[in-house]
Amino acid sequence: MNEINLKPIGIVHSPFREPSGVPKDSTDGMDYTGTVEIFPEYKDGLKDLEGFSHIILIFYFHKSEYSHLTVKPFLDSYLRGVFATRSPHRPNFLGLSVVKLIRIDNNILHIRGIDMIEGTPVLDIKPYIPEFESNEGIKIGWLEGKI
Amino acid sequence: MNEINLKPIGIVHSPFREPSGVPKDSTDGMDYTGTVEIFPEYKDGLKDLEGFSHIILIFYFHKSEYSHLTVKPFLDSYLRGVFATRSPHRPNFLGLSVVKLIRIDNNILHIRGIDMIEGTPVLDIKPYIPEFESNEGIKIGWLEGKI
Repeated sequence: MNEINLKPIGIVHSPFREPSGVPKDSTDGMDYTGTVEIFPEYKDGLKDLEGFSHIILIFYFHKSEYSHLTVKPFLDSYLRGVFATRSPHRPNFLGLSVVKLIRIDNNILHIRGIDMIEGTPVLDIKPYIPEFESNEGIKIGWLEGKI
Repeated sequence: MNEINLKPIGIVHSPFREPSGVPKDSTDGMDYTGTVEIFPEYKDGLKDLEGFSHIILIFYFHKSEYSHLTVKPFLDSYLRGVFATRSPHRPNFLGLSVVKLIRIDNNILHIRGIDMIEGTPVLDIKPYIPEFESNEGIKIGWLEGKI
């Protein structure tokens, strides 16, 4: 399988027009609300989603024009492997955010915790289900790490 | 933006050859180990990843041939909106799993918690960072829900 073709199922409407100033993740973006407009032909797929307080959005960093294998994350002084970061400049321009679902009006999802810019194409939505009972044993490396 | 083209960065090697019998999620698959072979040209992107105990894999359900907007999840008796499920038969055949990273040997990631089948194309890897301090306030709807 050499190439995979995907079609957006919807689009983000955000208070952020440009990548600069966007919260660095959805936790940081908790103060900001926005919407996801799901294209009408996919609306029936939203059934039952309102039962979830949080949802996962997989989206496309449509403003990314290049990718690097190592990047310098926000507030970091070292070059890190791109797969150990959330940089938009990755081999496939895929983004992932967990956002709070406020409500659904027809084909419009009202969300809180937005860290995407206006016009971001959305590729998939999944229910957020906590993976682990506690954070025990979770190690998040490079925050402490040295080069 | 009408069509988005992605290229696999690697491939899953799994004890599961066919979709039947695959654990329904990576928590269920905690007994099973496998590997992700990252293609050599992306190897430098793996730097620093070993500092993380858990990683997010975004992959492609390459055996999916059709999509539905409503599906009947495993052990459920109701049709649910596909975006409220993890069904592989979704508009874009994107899958998401959080797996435990055991170790990295060169371009091979050894993982635990595998719920993908042999040959699954991997599109992206992201570090897993717990989104919430506790699961307080998390609501997972359709498990209790009625149609």
